[in-house]
Amino acid sequence: MKKKAIVLLSGGLDSAVALFFARDKDYVCHCLNFDYGQRHNIEMVMAKKLSAGAGTALKTMKLVLPWGGSSLLDKKSALPSGRKPEEIKKSGIPSTYVPARNTIFLGIAASYAEAIAADAIFIGAHSEDSSGYPDCRKAYLEAFDRVIRIGTKRGLEKRLSLEFPLIGMAKKDIIKLGKSLGVPFQHTWSCYRGGTIRRIAANMPCGKCDSCILREKGFREAGLNDPLARQTIWTM
Amino acid sequence: MKKKAIVLLSGGLDSAVALFFARDKDYVCHCLNFDYGQRHNIEMVMAKKLSAGAGTALKTMKLVLPWGGSSLLDKKSALPSGRKPEEIKKSGIPSTYVPARNTIFLGIAASYAEAIAADAIFIGAHSEDSSGYPDCRKAYLEAFDRVIRIGTKRGLEKRLSLEFPLIGMAKKDIIKLGKSLGVPFQHTWSCYRGGTIRRIAANMPCGKCDSCILREKGFREAGLNDPLARQTIWTM
Repeated sequence: MKKKAIVLLSGGLDSAVALFFARDKDYVCHCLNFDYGQRHNIEMVMAKKLSAGAGTALKTMKLVLPWGGSSLLDKKSALPSGRKPEEIKKSGIPSTYVPARNTIFLGIAASYAEAIAADAIFIGAHSEDSSGYPDCRKAYLEAFDRVIRIGTKRGLEKRLSLEFPLIGMAKKDIIKLGKSLGVPFQHTWSCYRGGTIRRIAANMPCGKCDSCILREKGFREAGLNDPLARQTIWTM
Repeated sequence: MKKKAIVLLSGGLDSAVALFFARDKDYVCHCLNFDYGQRHNIEMVMAKKLSAGAGTALKTMKLVLPWGGSSLLDKKSALPSGRKPEEIKKSGIPSTYVPARNTIFLGIAASYAEAIAADAIFIGAHSEDSSGYPDCRKAYLEAFDRVIRIGTKRGLEKRLSLEFPLIGMAKKDIIKLGKSLGVPFQHTWSCYRGGTIRRIAANMPCGKCDSCILREKGFREAGLNDPLARQTIWTM
């Protein structure tokens, strides 16, 4: 019988690569997506396209964190803009950090994993070329893996683990890996700003937020073109 | 300035003691309660009474786990009944285990803690005289403490930790501690069955589920009377 995996699928580039990676490792994947009051829902539209394209199930959980605490949740706060990759890396935890987001998402994924008797939970987190989120670092993911292994029934039976295959990779290598796995990058959305109708129609991520900057750097260093910069989303 | 704590308050006896313990340690307490599809809502009514009685804030988060996976969520499944305390302790993880419940609750508590700049998260979990839940054991709580310490901003600043003061205590000692702290036990509900109107009106927890059995043992061994067995809830 094939192994089962829960894959945290945000609709961003990294989680898309994690999904295709798990599928390539022969897991039957069950994607888990969260509607948690993000500034925009383009990511969620992308998660649907990605999971459908990969032939996997997708479950979206609605979860409102009434205390906010992040510029990714509060449309009135300013997003970091125009920072260089090295500035992003050096400047500590940015305002886009959503308090304990991965801990919440992984906890819910662990519950889902117990219920459907999954063997692994995949997360596309990495800390190279990223925004300094504490819940994307290797030590954190290792600690959470231990939580799952000793704090769930499946874990205690040695049947459940947390997998974070992208953790040590640079963005360019994640993109190259995704390319080799056939990830449809045109169905991944990284821009924090989401998009006004005008921007989406014109097919333009903002190009200035940290996430756009890091994506652009990744594609450039990988020597690949980002299809989002050239195709129109509406035709996908 | 006084320290702040998030207290997971289910409305059961243990979390009530944890709340009064934290308050006694001079924390300003912010209680967090979950409406997650329990079989009954008496616990939640009790959480309101307890937090009001303790003069603390209470936030209730609604969270539905669509996959269920527990006899505590599914009214159609049978609850363990009539088991002796030693049977409960020896029989492994019972059907009342809710997959990864504490991991989800603690993750959300960590997010709340970040947002209000809390110093600690209190949980009343313990593993003596309890139901063998993997997410109530010391090793699990220590692992989650590490997740919080390295996976949150407050944790990295060494300003947030998980506190589980009841972990090594027998139920009788938790009850004695609660008594000394002035916990209103008549406002705590342990019975898994909740109660039909008839049972509540007659002021009777079922007396047969694991939770009733362990509570009864605790009060008996502590040499105290359980007020729930004598008072009418409606008059509280």
